[in-house]
Amino acid sequence: MRTAVQENSGRGCLYQSVAEEISRLIDQGMFRPGQRIPSVRALSRQLGVSVATVLEAYGLLEDRGSVEARPQSGYYVRSRSRARPAEPDISAPAMSPTAVSMGELVMMVLRDASNPDLVPLGATIPGPDLLPTDRLNRILSAVARRKGAQGASYAMPPGCEALRVQFARRALEAGCTLAPDDIVTTSGCQEAIVLSLQATCRPGDTVAVESPTYYNFLQAIEVLGLRALEIPTHPREGLSLDALRYALEQTPIHACLAIPNFNNPLGGSMPEEKKRELVELLAGHEIPLIEDDIHGELGFAEERPRAAKAFDRKGLVMLCGSVSKTLAPGYRVGWVAAGRFQKQVEHLKAVHNLATATLPQLAVAEFLANGGYDRHLRRLRKAAARQMEWLSRAVARHFPEGTKMTRPQGGLGLWVELPPGIDALVLYERALRAGITIAPGPLFSPKQRYRNFVRLNAGHWSDRTEKAVKVLGGLAAQP
Amino acid sequence: MRTAVQENSGRGCLYQSVAEEISRLIDQGMFRPGQRIPSVRALSRQLGVSVATVLEAYGLLEDRGSVEARPQSGYYVRSRSRARPAEPDISAPAMSPTAVSMGELVMMVLRDASNPDLVPLGATIPGPDLLPTDRLNRILSAVARRKGAQGASYAMPPGCEALRVQFARRALEAGCTLAPDDIVTTSGCQEAIVLSLQATCRPGDTVAVESPTYYNFLQAIEVLGLRALEIPTHPREGLSLDALRYALEQTPIHACLAIPNFNNPLGGSMPEEKKRELVELLAGHEIPLIEDDIHGELGFAEERPRAAKAFDRKGLVMLCGSVSKTLAPGYRVGWVAAGRFQKQVEHLKAVHNLATATLPQLAVAEFLANGGYDRHLRRLRKAAARQMEWLSRAVARHFPEGTKMTRPQGGLGLWVELPPGIDALVLYERALRAGITIAPGPLFSPKQRYRNFVRLNAGHWSDRTEKAVKVLGGLAAQP
Repeated sequence: MRTAVQENSGRGCLYQSVAEEISRLIDQGMFRPGQRIPSVRALSRQLGVSVATVLEAYGLLEDRGSVEARPQSGYYVRSRSRARPAEPDISAPAMSPTAVSMGELVMMVLRDASNPDLVPLGATIPGPDLLPTDRLNRILSAVARRKGAQGASYAMPPGCEALRVQFARRALEAGCTLAPDDIVTTSGCQEAIVLSLQATCRPGDTVAVESPTYYNFLQAIEVLGLRALEIPTHPREGLSLDALRYALEQTPIHACLAIPNFNNPLGGSMPEEKKRELVELLAGHEIPLIEDDIHGELGFAEERPRAAKAFDRKGLVMLCGSVSKTLAPGYRVGWVAAGRFQKQVEHLKAVHNLATATLPQLAVAEFLANGGYDRHLRRLRKAAARQMEWLSRAVARHFPEGTKMTRPQGGLGLWVELPPGIDALVLYERALRAGITIAPGPLFSPKQRYRNFVRLNAGHWSDRTEKAVKVLGGLAAQP
Repeated sequence: MRTAVQENSGRGCLYQSVAEEISRLIDQGMFRPGQRIPSVRALSRQLGVSVATVLEAYGLLEDRGSVEARPQSGYYVRSRSRARPAEPDISAPAMSPTAVSMGELVMMVLRDASNPDLVPLGATIPGPDLLPTDRLNRILSAVARRKGAQGASYAMPPGCEALRVQFARRALEAGCTLAPDDIVTTSGCQEAIVLSLQATCRPGDTVAVESPTYYNFLQAIEVLGLRALEIPTHPREGLSLDALRYALEQTPIHACLAIPNFNNPLGGSMPEEKKRELVELLAGHEIPLIEDDIHGELGFAEERPRAAKAFDRKGLVMLCGSVSKTLAPGYRVGWVAAGRFQKQVEHLKAVHNLATATLPQLAVAEFLANGGYDRHLRRLRKAAARQMEWLSRAVARHFPEGTKMTRPQGGLGLWVELPPGIDALVLYERALRAGITIAPGPLFSPKQRYRNFVRLNAGHWSDRTEKAVKVLGGLAAQP
């Protein structure tokens, strides 16, 4: 944060500090070469300093060659005529990966997903070629013109009805007979999960999670002051019910957060009978199940698996989903069917940010109704399966002897176990310097287990992907 | 919540329960008259019940006249040929306003703002005629077509740079020299406030707030497990610094949440010198000030008042704003300059919902850069001042003898004190039945003070407004 310029910060250096502030704004691109900076009078008024002070400051900037005065017009940022000196090389501090908090690392993995200079094997996001972006943007465009004032008005919780109707229809494919009023729209699936956690838990409460599980869930649990209890999870069959049953006897558990369909990062899907058992086991203890079904429509087989919610008889399953993996991450449109917690979730949504942006909701509703979503999904699922196959083969070819990996049935993540002794956080750092982002295993555990695991994203595939996997394999093999 | 249909819920009645579910979906509008319901085969697969069961269920619905079978085509929802029986009259339960939780009441006030059947004197939202909705929607429309994949991708925190540049420029008008990187974009101002509270407080901590203050702040404080400490606040001069100083000596305070410019609901603006004192007083105790400046650009005078942030030298002031009151509530675009808490807020934003929707951000950035925002603001400020004057005169004319009211210097709320003994919650209920929504005083206090106060919205003005104020005055005068 930058402190404002203070009249009382010492008369002598006041104009200098004004000059420094303006200089900083120029450096940061707020005023670009050739653009006019605020007039002397305006800046004087805005900062509450005298006209003389601003004049002195601008004089200083002129002397330094940062701005130029143009008669009758004002002060302008000078274009840099001479080549600037080269930037110093990238810093090379001693690497101590554990010094970076998991929170920072999560932010880096998420942000790096859209860094065009990196091969995006980190966050599991579908590549732009897999998404119907142009069509969706055209629909948004048409909706924005057509809807007028409605598009600019709040869509207070539960959110746009047209969208809830579509989500309810699609939930039928997952075996859930939801009515539109059983659904709240949210700013993506993550918000659906956070609101569900808040509706069911108080600070200090314990949430049972799959192990490993999606890192941003763990971040949410931490931020909300909750505790995560890791339950052993089979790569293909999901959460161990025996372990969960045992845990329920040993310790108070206030909610269970799971990804029964195409688990992240494991890629497996709980068999149907096991979903039913899971729901019944938790219901027997009156414990809510927060079900992330974000990958539910991204299975590699013909049939879309049912959600655990399909077996809910007590309103204890909170089904969360979004279109971030199938249509557009940046639209931030998701939903939750919160069962008996529906009213609380609506209230929490209003407290957090009042409502989800209206026009993205209306555009997604229109796409789901008339945009050929099912045809698109078939194509997307095939592409995801194909890319997963290519990625798996590349790992098999290039990773060190002794590497293991999952056999995902859907979703975009491949979970890779490196030979013991290889540190995923070190590999993460090395990969980053080689222009590749990956998701290191310790992110997926509150206790930072999975030191020798990484999750790779199959959502992008391009010429450079196979090469990047080869580089990764080489880096992993380095001592 | 609705339970899914269970094979094991007893063979005998299974087809009946399938029929009930479908019937409910029809009633709720998911399948409309003339539309086809799922095929027998599809529903059997989706719900995991036998084809025979679905056939029996559909047969039952046919018998009841809800659906009809069309040969070679499937089952269709029948249009209701006979008039349905009239709805029962509106219920008239004994009215016990305190039985409604403040949370529910807040939801009602917020939702009712967009109910076209009510005169919107509740939530302070500008009327559609005051906002440049068509122009903004056209810009969004153009941006959506132009930006392609960027528009559908995550704009991870701190958010779209083009928008942060614009917010930084405008902050200069408030006396704050912020760089784009000092800003995080959010889903509206409320989210900026919630993230700021989360970044600075832990459950159990105490937040000093103005009294009265905006109800959704109090909801956020409650949801986060914090405690609110009410500080006496002058209608025109804001927070009492003497009282705050005293409170700081008596009790640990972890943050102060205030609206120095055009307070909600009071409408007053702290004098500049007092803002500086407030910032210094809190800084002396190392306590962050969360500053809501959502109405900062909505003053009735020529000059835009400076923000308290302009006097921040320690990075302790977190300046929150949005375009919800000046451009489009439903775009959900806001921001916070979080000072030394910048990194935490970025992280919390990612944990909550990853990012703000991209295209609304880009559209607002474009409007701020090239949409004639300043011209629009001048017009908006004049209209708001004019409507506030009309509303004040109407209250003076029609409300009972002994009524008091504020003299707002900006914003959209008029705070009205009714003669003692008049219960604002009762008036709220009566008004609602008369087709008028208002914001009752007790919402603005964690202890539900202000029993005989209401806040009225000056953002809308139409033919029916003056009449509604007259009705309100009459209802208030009733015993």
